[in-house]
Amino acid sequence: MSTQSTTYATPQAEARDKASRARKAASSLAILTTGQKNNALERIAEALLQRTAELLDANEIDLQRGRDNGTAASLLDRLKLTPDRIAGIAEGVRQVIALPDPVGDTVQSIERPNGLRITQVTVPLGVIGMIYEARPNVTVDAAALCLKTGNAVVLRGGSAALQTNLKLVEVLRGALEHSDVPAEALQLIEDPSRASADAMLKLNGLLDVIIPRGGAALIRNVIENATVPVIETGAGICHTYVHEDADADMALSIALNAKVQRPSVCNSMETLLLHSRFAEQHMPRFAAAMKEAGVELKGSPDAIRFAGEAASIESATEENYATEYNDYVLNIRVVDGLEAALEHIERFGTRHSECIVTASDETAAAFLNRVDAAAVYHNASTRFTDGFEFGYGAEIGISTQKLHVRGPMGLPALTSTKYRVQGSGQIRG
Amino acid sequence: MSTQSTTYATPQAEARDKASRARKAASSLAILTTGQKNNALERIAEALLQRTAELLDANEIDLQRGRDNGTAASLLDRLKLTPDRIAGIAEGVRQVIALPDPVGDTVQSIERPNGLRITQVTVPLGVIGMIYEARPNVTVDAAALCLKTGNAVVLRGGSAALQTNLKLVEVLRGALEHSDVPAEALQLIEDPSRASADAMLKLNGLLDVIIPRGGAALIRNVIENATVPVIETGAGICHTYVHEDADADMALSIALNAKVQRPSVCNSMETLLLHSRFAEQHMPRFAAAMKEAGVELKGSPDAIRFAGEAASIESATEENYATEYNDYVLNIRVVDGLEAALEHIERFGTRHSECIVTASDETAAAFLNRVDAAAVYHNASTRFTDGFEFGYGAEIGISTQKLHVRGPMGLPALTSTKYRVQGSGQIRG
Repeated sequence: MSTQSTTYATPQAEARDKASRARKAASSLAILTTGQKNNALERIAEALLQRTAELLDANEIDLQRGRDNGTAASLLDRLKLTPDRIAGIAEGVRQVIALPDPVGDTVQSIERPNGLRITQVTVPLGVIGMIYEARPNVTVDAAALCLKTGNAVVLRGGSAALQTNLKLVEVLRGALEHSDVPAEALQLIEDPSRASADAMLKLNGLLDVIIPRGGAALIRNVIENATVPVIETGAGICHTYVHEDADADMALSIALNAKVQRPSVCNSMETLLLHSRFAEQHMPRFAAAMKEAGVELKGSPDAIRFAGEAASIESATEENYATEYNDYVLNIRVVDGLEAALEHIERFGTRHSECIVTASDETAAAFLNRVDAAAVYHNASTRFTDGFEFGYGAEIGISTQKLHVRGPMGLPALTSTKYRVQGSGQIRG
Repeated sequence: MSTQSTTYATPQAEARDKASRARKAASSLAILTTGQKNNALERIAEALLQRTAELLDANEIDLQRGRDNGTAASLLDRLKLTPDRIAGIAEGVRQVIALPDPVGDTVQSIERPNGLRITQVTVPLGVIGMIYEARPNVTVDAAALCLKTGNAVVLRGGSAALQTNLKLVEVLRGALEHSDVPAEALQLIEDPSRASADAMLKLNGLLDVIIPRGGAALIRNVIENATVPVIETGAGICHTYVHEDADADMALSIALNAKVQRPSVCNSMETLLLHSRFAEQHMPRFAAAMKEAGVELKGSPDAIRFAGEAASIESATEENYATEYNDYVLNIRVVDGLEAALEHIERFGTRHSECIVTASDETAAAFLNRVDAAAVYHNASTRFTDGFEFGYGAEIGISTQKLHVRGPMGLPALTSTKYRVQGSGQIRG
């Protein structure tokens, strides 16, 4: 039942060979029309639905191995495919079909005094390396977003999902064989060792960019070892600062939503900063509501004191403030005002999403101007930092770096530009 | 006469301390108005002119050391300041004043169905690390471009220019002290060892980007060792392909210009590809003209044969095709046609600037579509790939990578974006 891996002498040989194949395919893929690419994506969506039974069988091998190894239930749940989930993944591919193709747009067109016509146009990045963990949906999402933008892709998923990914890529490549997109544009690294991922990080000239998706350790390894350019995604230590003049109901509603609507994701809140005058009055209510929602609290001395008997709160350490919990845990720190809140965010934030709740437009403007983050919010939950919520559709990740793209990364993040210069014999004097 | 360096325990300590100072300064710099930044730049231009004598004295120390060490005349010339050159550098600062400020522009503004107003605005990158060689003009150019875009900058120039750079930065920081731009926004690493540059490469969280400017070895070291994001600049193995239907006079004029108008720069041509039917007829004339212009020729077997007695041509090796000469040396290769030319460029090009000379718009379109490079030319010299020639004004380098910016990097390349999200209590359902 298990799909057999091709044999390579070394993980490095596999990474290099597959990246070379992807690069060759990228040249012909780059010049396809939107219609040709959408047609290939539609075939992919259909194949996923038609071959659901095979996918479930392959997935069951991974699940069984996971159960045998004592893998945590939450990880097994992320790994698990069901007919509904496969239908959802296919529907995701159709959503990508519906998005506008960002390739081939004219960014600007200039005629120079010497008669040169310079046109800057959008082009695919080329070959994208994706390094991720055991979520099979990422395999298909990434493939769809890359192919739609005319990019070849080398996928390297987690070993826990290997049989599922092998089958998924077999299904996707099978679908491409009846389309104008070369099947070689889609490559899966089959060696599950760390060495294969590390080899990808050094493939300058073959890979144009690496996008890591996963936990902090995976992302750190990519940042520290890649010589290929990287788009950093995901780490989120996000704050909500409640100013003294905030509406208490609004502040509580936003804070609860930012913490518990989905604690496992990067745009959820890890630390709540309360103005001291606000905290003095409202801390017991906030502490009780968080406890009620199942949130474990850690607090600064003032936060603990103001909470009184409403909730027992552990002392928060510097390390707590620097931790991305992704869980039902929250730090609450009482601060003197805006400046102290800005300092805390500058020190502990990961430049992802930061919020102020205040009745003052002036205070809000100072916060929005001065906080250095991909998304800065006034009176709304940080949970909105997301491609769908911003109206961009599917995203390949959320960039927390400043180069190339910042925040939700939709299709345009997978393009570059090129200058086409047309002359009639011009030379430089 | 020599300016004394501050003493740090280690090169790493100096790099970290100066980057930290730059980061602190960056927050206040980021929110200055265009007028405040231009005023500071005007003071810099004036100070350079007023303190020309001091700059020449400091520069003479570097020059004398260079002469004592037997430094090549061409390098001493790059290092040398004169009153005219200083006036030119000050004029360069005034040109930056005249350019539009790209910070604070609204990229897009969206109102979501839930009432959230999402505005994407341009912001400075933050803190930029510049690692470069012994061209003192880069010190001032980089400072001016970074400050104009609200970025702090950590400069690390070559040891051969250390006294000149120390004095330049003293003059620039002195000028800033009478402006709203904090002098700490401008930092110079004074330790001339390789260790100080290497330390900068790992300052994630303090530096937002590193821009290397210099020779291939410097750029390679940065790419291979940086964990901070890098914008790769400069390496240029550029080609001109002459199709069989090209006008011979135009082709020769473009090829000569691309090779000899300024051979030392990255957009000059290193290899001329001639269609075999074109070469059979015109090779003797091309070879003679190149020889006449002082160019040493290396050629493929057909190129040598077709040149006949017009010029003696050495055999070109694979290594020659992979070399950026930046000098009066040229490879000439005879190819079967467009496909062979594309293959050669794909294999040996550095994705900088590539040209086709042809009378056919269709052949030109195939070339412009299929060549993967920052700038692709039809019937014009590759020497035009340059911020001024494109009409963008001063540039901080020419990017040969695909992320963030490709081709000439003007002021917009030194910005990122940020999403400002304004709500009235919205939470995610």
